[in-house]
Amino acid sequence: MTQVLDQARKITIPTKQEEEKMKTLSDFLLKLVKDEVTKHSEVVSVELGGSYAKGTWLRGQMDLDIFVKMKKETDEKTFEEIGKKIGFSSMKKFKPYVRYSEHPYVEAEVKGVRVNVVPSYDVEHGNWKSAADRSSFHTRFILETFDQTKKNEVRLLKKFLKGMDIYGAEIAKEGFGGYVAEVLVHHYGSFANVLEAAANFTSGQIIGNPTKKFETDLILIDPIDSNRNLGTAISTQNIGRFMLSARAFLKKPSLVFFTGTKLIPNAKNLKNIIIVKFNYKWRSPDIIWGQAKRGATALSGQLELAGFQILRKSVITDEKSEAAMLFLLRSPVIEKFMVKNGPQIYRRSDSDNFIAANSKNMLTWIDNDGKILSMKEREFYDAKKFLQFLLKKNLSKSGIPSGISLDIKRGFKVIDGSQVTSKSIKKALAELTSTDGLVFSSHK
Amino acid sequence: MTQVLDQARKITIPTKQEEEKMKTLSDFLLKLVKDEVTKHSEVVSVELGGSYAKGTWLRGQMDLDIFVKMKKETDEKTFEEIGKKIGFSSMKKFKPYVRYSEHPYVEAEVKGVRVNVVPSYDVEHGNWKSAADRSSFHTRFILETFDQTKKNEVRLLKKFLKGMDIYGAEIAKEGFGGYVAEVLVHHYGSFANVLEAAANFTSGQIIGNPTKKFETDLILIDPIDSNRNLGTAISTQNIGRFMLSARAFLKKPSLVFFTGTKLIPNAKNLKNIIIVKFNYKWRSPDIIWGQAKRGATALSGQLELAGFQILRKSVITDEKSEAAMLFLLRSPVIEKFMVKNGPQIYRRSDSDNFIAANSKNMLTWIDNDGKILSMKEREFYDAKKFLQFLLKKNLSKSGIPSGISLDIKRGFKVIDGSQVTSKSIKKALAELTSTDGLVFSSHK
Repeated sequence: MTQVLDQARKITIPTKQEEEKMKTLSDFLLKLVKDEVTKHSEVVSVELGGSYAKGTWLRGQMDLDIFVKMKKETDEKTFEEIGKKIGFSSMKKFKPYVRYSEHPYVEAEVKGVRVNVVPSYDVEHGNWKSAADRSSFHTRFILETFDQTKKNEVRLLKKFLKGMDIYGAEIAKEGFGGYVAEVLVHHYGSFANVLEAAANFTSGQIIGNPTKKFETDLILIDPIDSNRNLGTAISTQNIGRFMLSARAFLKKPSLVFFTGTKLIPNAKNLKNIIIVKFNYKWRSPDIIWGQAKRGATALSGQLELAGFQILRKSVITDEKSEAAMLFLLRSPVIEKFMVKNGPQIYRRSDSDNFIAANSKNMLTWIDNDGKILSMKEREFYDAKKFLQFLLKKNLSKSGIPSGISLDIKRGFKVIDGSQVTSKSIKKALAELTSTDGLVFSSHK
Repeated sequence: MTQVLDQARKITIPTKQEEEKMKTLSDFLLKLVKDEVTKHSEVVSVELGGSYAKGTWLRGQMDLDIFVKMKKETDEKTFEEIGKKIGFSSMKKFKPYVRYSEHPYVEAEVKGVRVNVVPSYDVEHGNWKSAADRSSFHTRFILETFDQTKKNEVRLLKKFLKGMDIYGAEIAKEGFGGYVAEVLVHHYGSFANVLEAAANFTSGQIIGNPTKKFETDLILIDPIDSNRNLGTAISTQNIGRFMLSARAFLKKPSLVFFTGTKLIPNAKNLKNIIIVKFNYKWRSPDIIWGQAKRGATALSGQLELAGFQILRKSVITDEKSEAAMLFLLRSPVIEKFMVKNGPQIYRRSDSDNFIAANSKNMLTWIDNDGKILSMKEREFYDAKKFLQFLLKKNLSKSGIPSGISLDIKRGFKVIDGSQVTSKSIKKALAELTSTDGLVFSSHK
């Protein structure tokens, strides 16, 4: 393992050139923002945050977060307006654009580095007003407790999580975010220790000292806020992927766990995939991902009610204009007939009602347990046709969030996995139809 | 109802001509048997039994049971030999043949009347040696307790049971036998009262006074033997048919309940029927019916294990050489892939084993509950092909009773409902694929 980790460090620790570039760039950009804030009396300070400030950023992954801290008395409207204004003015030479988290913030790309100018409130510990307020406490916590070795252990873990495709706290990924990686290394001491622990996580595993009860599969307490469970944002599936890949790595360490493998769609399974594809009017990624996920859950429920069995589902968006909900079905075409379960023959009035209600069915009979059953033709036995009908004729009752109902009303396509041409959908297709050999390693 | 019952009596009570014919015939045949038994010192007496002796026989249904009662000390071998000898000798002019119940007996057809010469032991009440020994006690019980009116009520009930196709205690039918009809009328007093009671049977309904615990859906105690449950021979399905048709008749009485309707196969459902058809070396009906039923249960289990869903099953034999097992499937072709349920990710060694065992599968993944699932191609997704393989290559492990294994080894056919030409199979097909409108009447 030592050898593999040494190799991994080489591809995770930034080069001297990168360090220098980031130093120069951050000094330069920080000054731009600082110059701008002098015009706004609400601003208390400007500081660097995120993985660069904490020294846990990955080689080749250069992001810069600049936090603009405002007086806690600033009202929300002013907070947002000034936030955007400072971001746009300071980054004006770099084609800035707005993005949305809880509040809007400004993003720009400067010399290949993604720069975020994020407004936050200057609050005391615990008196959080916006989601970004904890960030400077996180930064301080890491800087105070981590030495260089530990920072590099975080880099290993982040790279491993990336390799396993479970890195990122955003709703699109529901994986392990950067701060989660830091907290895990803080708790267990090293990359290898984190993996040893993950290999043996139990259901409802608690890491840290919660001051209240949480119900997630993994309960990971924020060291600077014992009321906050970082595990909430992580899907059970991703916890599972982490645990299984940790076990696989410990059994047979390899650099490939850090670099990942490219999955390709499994041709045999493509016909079992049904995709609802639509274009949407641009909105913030977190919004469209969330809407698409809720939409997929709704459609999955409708498909199940109609007799189809959903094995896996997924959503994808190019974060520009195209979104899709994907379903892996046990079979895209099911039997033409359904069986309705009736009451026991002994329940006289229930039996009468059931028989009357099903008198038009093709077959009614009594089974060996004395229950009345009735067989009728399904309205839909082809999942594609069912979805087409549902989304065209019954959209308002489908449970699809109103946010994407309008997009779907303007147009959608129901296709199967073999009809996909879009690059982003192909990626989702690969994940849905193929086994990740690193996660499901069969070395015993 | 009175009017319908009056009409029904006309078609159930034998005509004067029939009565006369039976009287003449029974005197004549009884004498033939009595002449024969003089040669055998083991025989104590000869007497008439069955529905003719009890006066509950149906118009147009002329059967004659002649019981040859032997000393209870007679050993079984002699009992059977003498029984057959007397039967064959006395009926020699009428092409007698042997049939088997618990013991062999002799049957012949004389002037359109089916005559059975049945050996039994002359025992005291309760000391039964053979199944036929109770018969003379049954006959005496009915003759002592029933007046002419009650006998005619039994006739109504028998005809109703025939109309509903649930008449007969034999294993082929698993319905309500003649004696059961008599006991029901004895218990409830009249045909209408029996139907009123049946309409409200509860699960585990007890009729009579059992001296021990029985587990059947209907517990019907033999009035001459409180240890004997006549309900054992009646299938739950037939109890259900009786209850539902009783309710339907009481709601809207009609002569058609006594005459029955002819079911025809439902064309829409024929493709969902898979039939295993084979020829067998002649044996007693009760034997082949029993074997075929056990065979159908075994194949049904095998089909379920292979992923097929069996809705109904049935067997049929022409009681000469042809037998068939019929299965109504939810679908004769199922999805090409099956999903294997694995352990929770938290169970480390189980997970390792599951992943290793399924490493060749087309897809392995973690579901939203943290369970590992794996999808693999089925070996068989076509029920016909599965049965063909099972019966050709794996017959000994199929659970098919050895009694018909040999027949099946000599040859069998797996066909679907649309390929049936045999008359007897067509009848079974009709019952399996069509709703009996009299049982499942939708009058509210």
